[in-house]
Parts: sequence; C-alpha cells; structure tokens
Amino acid sequence: MRPLRQALVAEFVGTAALLCAVIGSGIMAERLSGGNAGVALLANTLATVFILFVLIETLWPISGAHFNPVVTVMLTVRGDFRPQQGYVAVGMFIVAQVVGGIVGAFLANAMFDMPVTEFSTKVRSGWGQWIGEAVATAGLLFVILRAPAGRGSLIVAAFIGAAYWFTSSTSFANPAAVVGRMFSNSFAGIAPTSAGAFMAAEVVGAVLGTLLAGRLCDGRPLPDRT
Amino acid sequence: MRPLRQALVAEFVGTAALLCAVIGSGIMAERLSGGNAGVALLANTLATVFILFVLIETLWPISGAHFNPVVTVMLTVRGDFRPQQGYVAVGMFIVAQVVGGIVGAFLANAMFDMPVTEFSTKVRSGWGQWIGEAVATAGLLFVILRAPAGRGSLIVAAFIGAAYWFTSSTSFANPAAVVGRMFSNSFAGIAPTSAGAFMAAEVVGAVLGTLLAGRLCDGRPLPDRT
Amino acid sequence: MRPLRQALVAEFVGTAALLCAVIGSGIMAERLSGGNAGVALLANTLATVFILFVLIETLWPISGAHFNPVVTVMLTVRGDFRPQQGYVAVGMFIVAQVVGGIVGAFLANAMFDMPVTEFSTKVRSGWGQWIGEAVATAGLLFVILRAPAGRGSLIVAAFIGAAYWFTSSTSFANPAAVVGRMFSNSFAGIAPTSAGAFMAAEVVGAVLGTLLAGRLCDGRPLPDRT
Amino acid sequence: MRPLRQALVAEFVGTAALLCAVIGSGIMAERLSGGNAGVALLANTLATVFILFVLIETLWPISGAHFNPVVTVMLTVRGDFRPQQGYVAVGMFIVAQVVGGIVGAFLANAMFDMPVTEFSTKVRSGWGQWIGEAVATAGLLFVILRAPAGRGSLIVAAFIGAAYWFTSSTSFANPAAVVGRMFSNSFAGIAPTSAGAFMAAEVVGAVLGTLLAGRLCDGRPLPDRT
Repeated sequence: MRPLRQALVAEFVGTAALLCAVIGSGIMAERLSGGNAGVALLANTLATVFILFVLIETLWPISGAHFNPVVTVMLTVRGDFRPQQGYVAVGMFIVAQVVGGIVGAFLANAMFDMPVTEFSTKVRSGWGQWIGEAVATAGLLFVILRAPAGRGSLIVAAFIGAAYWFTSSTSFANPAAVVGRMFSNSFAGIAPTSAGAFMAAEVVGAVLGTLLAGRLCDGRPLPDRT
Repeated sequence: MRPLRQALVAEFVGTAALLCAVIGSGIMAERLSGGNAGVALLANTLATVFILFVLIETLWPISGAHFNPVVTVMLTVRGDFRPQQGYVAVGMFIVAQVVGGIVGAFLANAMFDMPVTEFSTKVRSGWGQWIGEAVATAGLLFVILRAPAGRGSLIVAAFIGAAYWFTSSTSFANPAAVVGRMFSNSFAGIAPTSAGAFMAAEVVGAVLGTLLAGRLCDGRPLPDRT
Repeated sequence: MRPLRQALVAEFVGTAALLCAVIGSGIMAERLSGGNAGVALLANTLATVFILFVLIETLWPISGAHFNPVVTVMLTVRGDFRPQQGYVAVGMFIVAQVVGGIVGAFLANAMFDMPVTEFSTKVRSGWGQWIGEAVATAGLLFVILRAPAGRGSLIVAAFIGAAYWFTSSTSFANPAAVVGRMFSNSFAGIAPTSAGAFMAAEVVGAVLGTLLAGRLCDGRPLPDRT
Repeated sequence: MRPLRQALVAEFVGTAALLCAVIGSGIMAERLSGGNAGVALLANTLATVFILFVLIETLWPISGAHFNPVVTVMLTVRGDFRPQQGYVAVGMFIVAQVVGGIVGAFLANAMFDMPVTEFSTKVRSGWGQWIGEAVATAGLLFVILRAPAGRGSLIVAAFIGAAYWFTSSTSFANPAAVVGRMFSNSFAGIAPTSAGAFMAAEVVGAVLGTLLAGRLCDGRPLPDRT
C-alpha cells in the first residue's frame, strides 16, 4: 500500500466512482429501457462490471481497492490488511468509503438533473432479500480471498455481475453502497428504512464467506496462490 | 488436488453455487423481462458465464472444478483424474455434485420466496433437443480437454455462454444440473419426466467429445499445452 | 501445425461448429426475442463472439484456426502459411472449411427441428451492404495480421462482435460462412442469389486489409510482436 | 513509436474505424431495436467496447493508440508523448484524428445508404450533460495514466463501456468523436451547435483527470507499474 493519505483518496475516489456508476447507469437504464426492467438491469449490470474491473485495476496498487467497509473489516480481522497506523487507519478507510458513496450518489444526481440530495422511497425487505444479501456478501468475500493473484479484478467484477441477477436483492453486498443508494430515488435506490437490515445481512454474509474461504485451505495459504 | 475432504466441499459448494446462479438468475430474468424471453435468456446467459468463470478460477486449485458427473467420469476414464482414494473418491465426487445441485436449487427458491421444494412442470423433449444436449456436452468435454493451460475458466464459461443460444436445449450439459433444475418451477426448470433422456444424451455427447479431443492429438498430449 | 490430416479435421470441425453456432443462435434468438431484432442480434453477437474465442483457443495449435478461405489464401500469399504439402494442402483447407460450413448449417437445422437442407430466401444486396462486407473482411485480415501474440483469439472475436453491428451486412466476412448460411432459412441466412456478390466484396476487402496491415510495418515484422 | 508517417496513418485509420463503429452501430441499433432505446444503447456499447479493445491492441505499438486530441495533448504536457519531430508531430496527430473521425462518419453513412455528408440535428446541452462529459473525460485520462502495463486496452474499453451508461452525455470524451458525430443524423449524432460546449467540458475533464492521476502517485511513477 502507498502512503495512508493517498490510500484514503483512492478509497474515496473509488467508492464515489463506483456508486456514481451504479446509480448513474441505473437512472439512464430506467429512462431508456421503455419499462422493460430486464433490459434496464442488463445495462446496469454491464456498467457495474466494467467500472468495478477498471477501479480495481487502477486503484489496487494504491489502497488495495476495498471500496467496502465489510471487506476492510474482514481483511483486518484475518490479518491481511495491516496498515502501519493500526485501527485508526481502518476507521479512516471506512469513513472514506461511506463519504465516497454519498458523494458518488450526489454526482450521479447532478449529472442527470435530479435533486442532488433526495432520499429513495424504494422499500427492499423480507427474508428472501435478506438471504440474498447474505449470499451475495458471502460470495464476495469468498472470491476476494480465493482469487488467484492478478485476476482479482476480473473475478470480483464477474461475481458481482452474476450476483446482480441470481440474488433476490440484486446484490448490494456493501454497506457503503447501501448508504450511497439511499440518496437515489431511482431503480438503484433503497429506502433508508430498509438499509439497516440489508447491512446486518451483509455482515452475516461476510463472516460466513470468510469462514468458508478459510476452511477450504485449513487456514494456511494455498501454495498455488503465492 | 487438495485433501479429499476439502475437494468434496469444493465440489459441493461449487455445484450448489452454479445451480443457485443458473436458477436464481432464471427466476429474476423471467420476472423482469416483461415476457420477452430473448431478454430473459440474455440475462441468464451473462449470469451463468460470469459465475462459471468465478467458480472455476477460485475452486480449480482445490478440486479441479468439475461440478459435473460426466466430467468427473470422463477425466477418470482418460486417467486425467486419479484421486489417491480411487473409485470411492470418484463416487463421492458425484454425490457431492448431485447433492450440491439440489441444495443450490433450494437456495434459489428460498431467496425468491418460492416453495423451497417444488418440481418443474416444464417438458423438454424431442430429437431436436436431445441432439442439442449431445452437441452441448460433446463441446464441453472437447473444450475442457483442449483448453490451453490457465485459460480453461474463460474458455469453458464462453463455450457455455454460446451453447445456451446455439443448442436447442439451451445446453444443460450436466446431469447434476438436470437434477437441480428439476426442483425449479421456472424458466430454468426441467420436468422430472424429461430428465432421463437429457442425461442419456449428455452421456452420449460426453463420450463423443472426449473421443474427438483424443483423435485430434493422436492420444498424445499436445506439446504446446504443457 | 500438426499433421495435415489432423489440421483438416480441425478446420472442418471448427468451421462446422462456427456455422452451427452462428445459425443455431440466430434461430433461437429469432424465436425468443418477440420480434425485437435488436435483442435477437445482441444474442447472436454474444454467441458468435464466445464460440469464436473458444474455437480459436482450442484449435489454433492444430490448424492455425483459419475457418475461412480468404484467411487461408491471404496467409498463403504472404508466406505466413506454408504447409509442407504446398498448394494441395491449401486447397484441402478450403474444401474442409466449405464442407464444414455446410455441415454446421445442417446440424443447426436438425437441432431446431427444421428441414435439414433448406435454402435461405433472405436477399442481402446493394452497394451499402457490399461496402459493409468489404470493410468487415478488411478489418478481419488487418486484426489477424496485427494481433499481438497470444491475444489473437480475443481480438478476432471482439472484432467480429463489433462488426456484426457497425457494418450494414452484419459482417459475414467469410466465404465458407456465406455458403453455410445459404442453407438456413432464418434470421442468419442469405439467399443463394446474393452469395456471389458478398464473396466478391469479401475478396476485395481481404486484399485491402492485408495491404494496410503490411504498409503499417513496412513489410517487416513489428519488433514487439516476436 | 514507429516512424511518424506510419504513426499518422495509424491515428487516422484508428480514429476512422472508431467513429465508423460508433456511428454505424448506432444506426444499426436504432433500426433494429424497435424503439427501445435501452436495447439500442446496449448494442452501441458492446460494439464500441469491442472495437476500442481491438484498435488499441493492434495500433498501440505503432502510434500509441491515442485516437483523441485531448489524450495527445495531455500526454504531451506530461512528457509521456515526446515525438522526435516535436510540436509539429503533435499537431499532425490531432489533424489525423479529426480527419479520421470525419472519414469514419462518412464511411458509416455510405454503408447504411444514408447521405454521405449530413449534419446531425440532435441537440445535446445543459449543465447535467456538460458535467457528464467532464466526468467521462476525467475518468478516461485517469485510467489511461493509471492502467497497469499490458492491460490498457481492456481497461480503457471497459471504462468507456461503463461511461456510456453512467454519464448523462453517453460519454463522447473525445473532441475528434464530437466532430465525426456531427456528420451523423442518427442516435449517435450531435448537432454542430452543441459541439463547442461538449469540447470545452472535455478539456476541463481531461485536465482534472490528469491532475488526479498525478496526485495519487506524487508525480513519481508507481513502483509496481514498471
């Protein structure tokens, strides 16, 4: 990792760009798809897959490209993320991600001539979606921890692209994304009242995915991963 | 390959995740695409391609990422798969795959608030589809056996993505997938009465594909494959 | 290249698989897309891109993965393709490709329960489409000759994926494909009366693309191509 | 870089091919998508992503694959682009790009049997779109400057694919593209009266993206970039 100041800028910029892309493409897709939500989610999926790949490739050398509080926390717990500045740095990463997510939502709203700060009214709730969110986040942690070196960007992007469709929650899998999407009254938004349960499901999923990834290699790194 | 216990977990988890993604994205696609089956199959294709790539990349070092009984059997016959525990391990692989396929279907049903165990009523039958299934499975075995080292994940995922569209059966190409999809009353399902003939066609195709791959290199490994 | 017999099998199998995929996915796409030709061509594009990548990756070490008479001829003229058996081998390559294209069309028809041998009635004609076909084939030869080592499969597949959309002819760019598609009365077909002019345009395009690729490196190989 | 004459041909051919693909696929998509602009933009996105990847891969060794005046200018300012012939070469690059863009538009019009030289009547204006254009160009410069060696083609193509959807302007991000698209009265066009403001926004974005990329590495090259 590069100096902390640069890493924080990278996490801020990366999470802002990610949320700007997710929400912006959601608005564009909704406007253009003539009411066909399948077409809209296809477009939203492609845009998200492309930008995730780009952001991980370009920012990984600077901050590790977490863009996601549960990723930062789990990597810290495992000992894979050990910044010189200790837990203070971990906290600052999370702040940078959450603030980035909100700024990204504002930027998307500004580009599409919508009120810059608006709250979503889209309720997302129920056991089906909570299981979906836990599955999505478990998968995300699993693939982050098991991706062969140099292919993490492709693998994480592809996983999210699949999970947008196969989880009933369309796979937020990121508390910073939940916060950012609260500020978008679009296809991609989530009502503030639905946010807490989504985040709780994400934490449960993150723990499960991390445990599974660990069990599959007995806690030792895989030799072919180096 | 890693220890057998871990390999079995990998085959179980991988096949469950594969079927969960295939069926989950099928349900989501059907719900969102406003009756346009082309849009629905596009979404189902993307999700399947993405998850296959992810699962092969992350689980290949642990179990070889078969997720498919005919793949396990053909690799065993060729001598490419030689677990220390012999045929017992081969049988356990197949059990892990079939049970994984069923659990994946249950998980998809749970996420989308459908009855967890339900049978498909979608009849898939006739010579056209049986030829399709044989072509798909022949192609799958061929590409598995001829993929250059390190590119198998991309090549297998891309092949299935194409075969979803160019075979009349939408390319199950996997008896464990046939079993799992029997438990999904959706776009992606198959009625239990259609399952037997599909599996028979898959076995025929697997043998043909394996023979073709062998003939093209006279039974000797290609020098540029190493 | 492997022994000629194997190379001919590879060219036959590869061209058959290519045409089977192009036509099969065309039929499937037409049936599922509810009259939206845009959705149909998207599906046809994805299937073609995926199968091209797969076929070039798996058959390149055996025959060079031409699957296309103008590619074989141009590589021979440039001296890049020099089989031990001389011009006889070149002729046999072309025969294998054309027969493969026809067999692929028959297989697609069989899978989709259509008359196995039927002729297309889809007229494709006019200067716009002929220019399109010349542009597509020029581009194809150019990218084949200029692709960096090890990336030809991705680059050729991506080029055809783009050219399906940006050329007015939807980019056949291959006389063996023209012959095969004459036998498909579908979205992907071409009436026999339109075939001659398409092939002529392809030859013109192939020559132009080869010349352009040559000029850009003064006839000498690029140093960074090895 | 290869000799200047060849580099100029590469910039001309590359920009012409890029614009031909963007506009041609725009026309085709509009014609086929039955009024669903979401389907049309999906097709336009795929074609653009594919051709960008192809052109950067094949022409980068010859000219650096700029195809874009603001890229040429920013690389010159940073000292990354230092042709032997100095500013004259920089100017000639820009001329080759702009002329290429126009010729590409003409070629697309010719292929689709439209008047070869026609002006677009599609007004694109307002702060939302100008911010969008600045964001798109900032991102483009950022990813060009931060892409790991050997992955620039994939990363730039993926970024543009995302930006087509998440920016309100559909991401021209290139003054040569603005000029070329003025000559297309289609989905992909831009009215000449809207062109100036788009270019101004692109210049602002290019400067911002270049500065951000510079700050994230303190002006020193990243060690892991070699």
